[in-house]
Amino acid sequence: MIHDPTLRDGHHAVRHRLDAEQLRGYAAAADAAGVPVVEVGHGNGLGASSLQVGRARLRDDEMLAVVREALPNSRMGVFMLPGWGTGDDLRRAVRHGADVVRVAAHCTEADVAERHLDLLGETGVEAQGVLLMSHMAEPGRLAEQCAALVSYGARAVGIFDSSGHYLPTDVTERITAITAAVDVPVIFHAHNNLGMAVANSVAAATAGATIVDACARGFGAGAGNTQLEVVVPVLERMGFDTGIDLYALLDAGDLAERTLMPAPPTISSESIVSGLAGVFSGFKNRVLDASRRAGVDPRDVFFELGRRQVVAGQEDLIVDVVTELRSDTTLRARDDGGRGAARS
Amino acid sequence: MIHDPTLRDGHHAVRHRLDAEQLRGYAAAADAAGVPVVEVGHGNGLGASSLQVGRARLRDDEMLAVVREALPNSRMGVFMLPGWGTGDDLRRAVRHGADVVRVAAHCTEADVAERHLDLLGETGVEAQGVLLMSHMAEPGRLAEQCAALVSYGARAVGIFDSSGHYLPTDVTERITAITAAVDVPVIFHAHNNLGMAVANSVAAATAGATIVDACARGFGAGAGNTQLEVVVPVLERMGFDTGIDLYALLDAGDLAERTLMPAPPTISSESIVSGLAGVFSGFKNRVLDASRRAGVDPRDVFFELGRRQVVAGQEDLIVDVVTELRSDTTLRARDDGGRGAARS
Repeated sequence: MIHDPTLRDGHHAVRHRLDAEQLRGYAAAADAAGVPVVEVGHGNGLGASSLQVGRARLRDDEMLAVVREALPNSRMGVFMLPGWGTGDDLRRAVRHGADVVRVAAHCTEADVAERHLDLLGETGVEAQGVLLMSHMAEPGRLAEQCAALVSYGARAVGIFDSSGHYLPTDVTERITAITAAVDVPVIFHAHNNLGMAVANSVAAATAGATIVDACARGFGAGAGNTQLEVVVPVLERMGFDTGIDLYALLDAGDLAERTLMPAPPTISSESIVSGLAGVFSGFKNRVLDASRRAGVDPRDVFFELGRRQVVAGQEDLIVDVVTELRSDTTLRARDDGGRGAARS
Repeated sequence: MIHDPTLRDGHHAVRHRLDAEQLRGYAAAADAAGVPVVEVGHGNGLGASSLQVGRARLRDDEMLAVVREALPNSRMGVFMLPGWGTGDDLRRAVRHGADVVRVAAHCTEADVAERHLDLLGETGVEAQGVLLMSHMAEPGRLAEQCAALVSYGARAVGIFDSSGHYLPTDVTERITAITAAVDVPVIFHAHNNLGMAVANSVAAATAGATIVDACARGFGAGAGNTQLEVVVPVLERMGFDTGIDLYALLDAGDLAERTLMPAPPTISSESIVSGLAGVFSGFKNRVLDASRRAGVDPRDVFFELGRRQVVAGQEDLIVDVVTELRSDTTLRARDDGGRGAARS
């Protein structure tokens, strides 16, 4: 039930610079706690290490080899975004022993995952299809897109709240629609921009999601993900059986805090604005960097990116928006869109 | 609607050592954002500065004078636990310009607040009555205790989730019972041990609570409180009107992070166990200190304190439990109560 992308989504928080020792140590601790799936890779997935989104310290092959060896019991997961990752990347990941392969697509573009899901059908690994930035589509559309992913061969499908925008009722509505439309396990992946990651994950499980993503200390892009060692005992208290040992899981969380991150994620002003505006969490560091260089309020940049409905992969638009906001010095006084968010 | 105890509950996280400059700066920023009530004082309230729970840097009088001056618009709040605080402390706080005075009692002992609420009746300030450790009583009992607080003169009443134990459905049940039993505003105060502070606060507001406590960056005891600058835009998005300016509130949060705390609260393993076990959040640092000195697993100490239903004010039992656990070296192997929490 629990899928742990600490060593993939957490990479966003440290600019993809985890080394072999860090990967090995955490993977072994998660394995010892009984975490069913441990995902690893560049934050943007297979093949994504690049100047545009950041170079990983290790090659995909190196990361997979290290983590595979550290997981005697847990299954190993990988993530890929078609466009960054290729068929060759997938084949190599399978050769390295990936058991669960997630192919991601923007929430209205399931068809871009067809070829890769099809390719995985021949390999015997568990192919999963997930929809990013899912707050940008209505429940019915998400259900339809998930059904398409199943038709391409996905053996589990679901949604990512990539910008941490949902409140629990939003999640309940969407997961309910999806579980009604497909007969495979349903996945939910949260971000904590509005402090709702644990509550949203619990809402998803209650509405029928059977695969819940969670990271040690919430280590992930932006405000972080659902905190693994919190959501597990909460789900257990509610009657779900995760099969995970609490003390060993807390030990893994402590190890993660000590060895993977400068500090656990907290919810900064920019993360709040990013979540309200519905902007992809992976943009956070790039927005902050570009805004500071230009002397522009990053909160205005997030709200403007939200208004333009910018999606993952359009990182180049960050600089465009910053440049426009800088040249239009009167914008903030004129446009109450940002400040009005608490009042609208 | 929003009541901000950053400068009171946050004191627990820095062993009550905030200085005048820190208090003044944050109070002024909260006032500028339009926060209705800013509470200040030692973490355990008026008169509590002591060796047993920690000495505050400033006297109550000094804290109140500094904050009063920094609040041209917001009302100033104080907190008191009968036993720590006396009638004289209350009278002095009123003379220093406290507008809102909270008298707290253990959840089944509303009657200890009677004399102080009665005394406040003569002063014209807003007297509030709150029940601590409220997860230890059933909804009906809490409603009955809140009605008693109203009969003593409280003009608002409510509950504290002092150990961060609630899930949203627990809050809905209790606030619904209380709002049905009293005709004054109902208060809810969360802690974030199980990652539910924002979700629980939203559940409380939805169930009819009209005073919601929240702190900048969640600065408070243990895993912290509801994060103020998160819950405000979330409540606004849900249709509640807080009257608070978003950008000014985010500025206040940024200032708080920079000037009040070494780092924003995050959810440590000990906080999770404390929340699961239902132990008072203010115990955290003392449990950690005592456990480390004795070489005992603090998680076992929290679970044992929870089993004994230890309440705020019984800090001396921490050392008793640590001593017993140290002498009983076989306990952890024998007793599966702690490890079993994720499985029960």
